[in-house]
Amino acid sequence: METISFARGVPAPELLPVEQLANCAKTAIESGGAAALLYGHTLGYQPLREWIGERHGVDPARVVVTNGSLQAFHFVLSAFPGRVIVERPTYDRPRKILSAFDEVPLDDDGLDVDELERLLESGERPAFLYTIPTFQNPAGVTLSEERRRRLAELAGTRSLRILEDDPYGLVRFEGEPLPTLFELEGGRNVMYSSSFSKTIAPGLRVGYVILPEEIAVGLEDIVASTYITPTLVTEATVLEFLRRGLLEPNLERVRGLLRERRDAMLEALERELGGRARWSHPQGGYFLWLELPEGTDATELLGRATAAGVTFVPGSDFGGEPHSARLAFSFASPAEIDEGVSRLAELVPAAAAVKLP
Amino acid sequence: METISFARGVPAPELLPVEQLANCAKTAIESGGAAALLYGHTLGYQPLREWIGERHGVDPARVVVTNGSLQAFHFVLSAFPGRVIVERPTYDRPRKILSAFDEVPLDDDGLDVDELERLLESGERPAFLYTIPTFQNPAGVTLSEERRRRLAELAGTRSLRILEDDPYGLVRFEGEPLPTLFELEGGRNVMYSSSFSKTIAPGLRVGYVILPEEIAVGLEDIVASTYITPTLVTEATVLEFLRRGLLEPNLERVRGLLRERRDAMLEALERELGGRARWSHPQGGYFLWLELPEGTDATELLGRATAAGVTFVPGSDFGGEPHSARLAFSFASPAEIDEGVSRLAELVPAAAAVKLP
Repeated sequence: METISFARGVPAPELLPVEQLANCAKTAIESGGAAALLYGHTLGYQPLREWIGERHGVDPARVVVTNGSLQAFHFVLSAFPGRVIVERPTYDRPRKILSAFDEVPLDDDGLDVDELERLLESGERPAFLYTIPTFQNPAGVTLSEERRRRLAELAGTRSLRILEDDPYGLVRFEGEPLPTLFELEGGRNVMYSSSFSKTIAPGLRVGYVILPEEIAVGLEDIVASTYITPTLVTEATVLEFLRRGLLEPNLERVRGLLRERRDAMLEALERELGGRARWSHPQGGYFLWLELPEGTDATELLGRATAAGVTFVPGSDFGGEPHSARLAFSFASPAEIDEGVSRLAELVPAAAAVKLP
Repeated sequence: METISFARGVPAPELLPVEQLANCAKTAIESGGAAALLYGHTLGYQPLREWIGERHGVDPARVVVTNGSLQAFHFVLSAFPGRVIVERPTYDRPRKILSAFDEVPLDDDGLDVDELERLLESGERPAFLYTIPTFQNPAGVTLSEERRRRLAELAGTRSLRILEDDPYGLVRFEGEPLPTLFELEGGRNVMYSSSFSKTIAPGLRVGYVILPEEIAVGLEDIVASTYITPTLVTEATVLEFLRRGLLEPNLERVRGLLRERRDAMLEALERELGGRARWSHPQGGYFLWLELPEGTDATELLGRATAAGVTFVPGSDFGGEPHSARLAFSFASPAEIDEGVSRLAELVPAAAAVKLP
C-alpha cells in the first residue's frame, strides 16, 4: 500500500515545470556567464533584485534575495533581535528558531487583532510581529481586509514592525486578491518576504525580503559572513523564467491543480468526517487545518494513520491544540486525497463535542 | 585606465566552464526532476553525497553538502562551539565570524606545530583547530609532510579536533600532492571541508564537510532550521559535471592558466621588487603573500594603489602584519599581472630592512 502524504506541503512532482526550468537554467548560465558563476552581490543577483523591485514598486536596493525565505527570516532576526510575536498556530520553523516568542491566536479571519492590541498594551515593544496573512501555514486562513487595514494602521500608530511572510499569496484559486500589509502600510514598518518555492519550485531555494534600505545595506556584512553570496545560478534561472513570462501560465496551471485537490479534500472531509470534525476552507495555498474531536491526540493518531497509509502533521508542531492537524492537499492527487481521507476517518473517534475556534 | 585586481581570489571569467555548466544544469534538472526541484535531504543531494563519499572513501552519511563551504564552517561551529584556534594569517571570514579565537603563526612550511603544542599545553582544550594546510588563504604556503604527520598525531594524542579546509588542494600546478590530514588521521578527530568554488565555479555555491557520522546526523535539525534544504539544483548540476568526467579536464585547464599567472607574478615581483620585498612561492592555489618593507602600511598603500589602478587585500584583514598583503594571481591575465606589479612597485618605498617570517 502506497502511503498518501498530507504531510508534504510542497508542489507535487507533476506541478513542477521541469522542462521549462531545464531550459531556463541553460540559458541563464550561458547568458549570465561570470555574473552567474562568480561571487556576486551579497544581497542577490542584481537583475533579479531589479525585477522584484519593479514588481513591488520599490528600489532594488531594498530587496535581499536569499537561499529560500527561511534564510531571510534569519537575516531579519539578526537585524531585529528580541522577542518576536507569532501567530498561534504558525509555521513550525520560526517556532524552533526563536528562543522566546509571544503568541496571538488566529480565527477564520486570520490573526486576532484585538488580542494583538492587548498584548502590545501589556508588554514591552516586540522586535517584530511575524505573520502569514494569506493562506496561512498551517491554518489555511486569510486575514480579512478590515483586519489588514487595522494591522497596517497599528504598524504606524504603535511603531510595530511587522514581517509579512507571503509565499502563498499568488496561489489563490478563488475570491478576490486582498491588498498586502506591505501595500497598505507603504513598507515603512512592514517588511515583506516571499519565495519562488510555492510558485515555481522549492529546490531552487530562491526567496527574498523587502526591507527599509538602511536595514538591507546593514545586512551586507552578516550575509557575506553567512555564505559570501547566495546561490546565483538558481537566481539567474528564476529570472530567466520570469523574463520569459512563464510565471503567470505556471501559476494558472498550479492554481487549477490545487483547486481540484482542495475540492477533493473538502468533499472527502464532508463525506467522511462531517459532524465529527471541523476544518478551514482555504481559497488558495497548500494547506487546510483540521480540528478533530476534543480529547483526540493528533500525534498518537499520526502513528496509527502512518500504519494505515496516510500521513499529516500534528497541529501541536505549529503550536496548535493537541486535537488539531495540518493537512496539505498539494502533494496527493484527487483520487489519493479521497482515499487518504477515508483511511484517516476510520481512525477518528466519534465526536463527543467538536469545539473549534 | 582599467583597474587590475589582485584582490579577487576567484577564477577569472575565462577560467569558467560556462557552456559545460549550462548543459549540465539542463540535464541535471531534466533527469533529476522532482529530486532536484523539491525539498530534499537536509544534508544534501543524496547522489552527490554518495559521489563525495566514494571519492574520499567514507560513508555518504558522513558527508554534509552545503551552500558553499563557509556555511559548513557555521555548522561545524554549531556542533563544536567554543574557542577556536586559527592560523595567523588566515581566511578573513572565520576571523569575523568567531567571537574569540587563538592564533598560531605560519611560516613557509605552514602552521608552526611547535607553537601549536605550546598553546595546547598552556590553555584549555579548544573547540577545534581551523587550518588550511594546502595553498593556504591568504599566505599561499603549504604544510610540509613532516608537519602533517605531527599534526595528525596530535589529533589523536591530544584529542585535538581539527577542521581541515581544503578548497585549493586540487589546484596544484607543480610538486607532488601531499596526503591530507584527514587521510593521515583517518577522519576521527579531523573533519574535512572542501568546495567546488575553486575547481568549477563559486556562483554554484556547493561546498561540503565530512564529519563523524553522529555529528552529521546531529546537524540535521540546525540545517533544516537554517535553510530547510540546501540548493539542490546546483548540487545536481555539479554531480552531472562530475559524472561526465569534466572535473579533471577542467582542472587541467585551470592549473595551466593559473601556473602561467603565478609565473608572471613571480617574475614581475622579482623584476620590480627584488631586494625590496619578500613573497611566498605557492605551488598551487590562487594567492601569494607579499611582505613589504617594515614600516609600510599596506592599508595606506592600497589607497594609493587603487588610485594608480591596481588593488589587493591588506594582510591585516587576515590577521597579518601591517606591511603584508595578499596578492591573487587568479583574476588578472599574465599581461595585466605584469603591468599591475609595475604599478604597485612604483608606490613601494625602498627597503630599509625587509624582515620576513
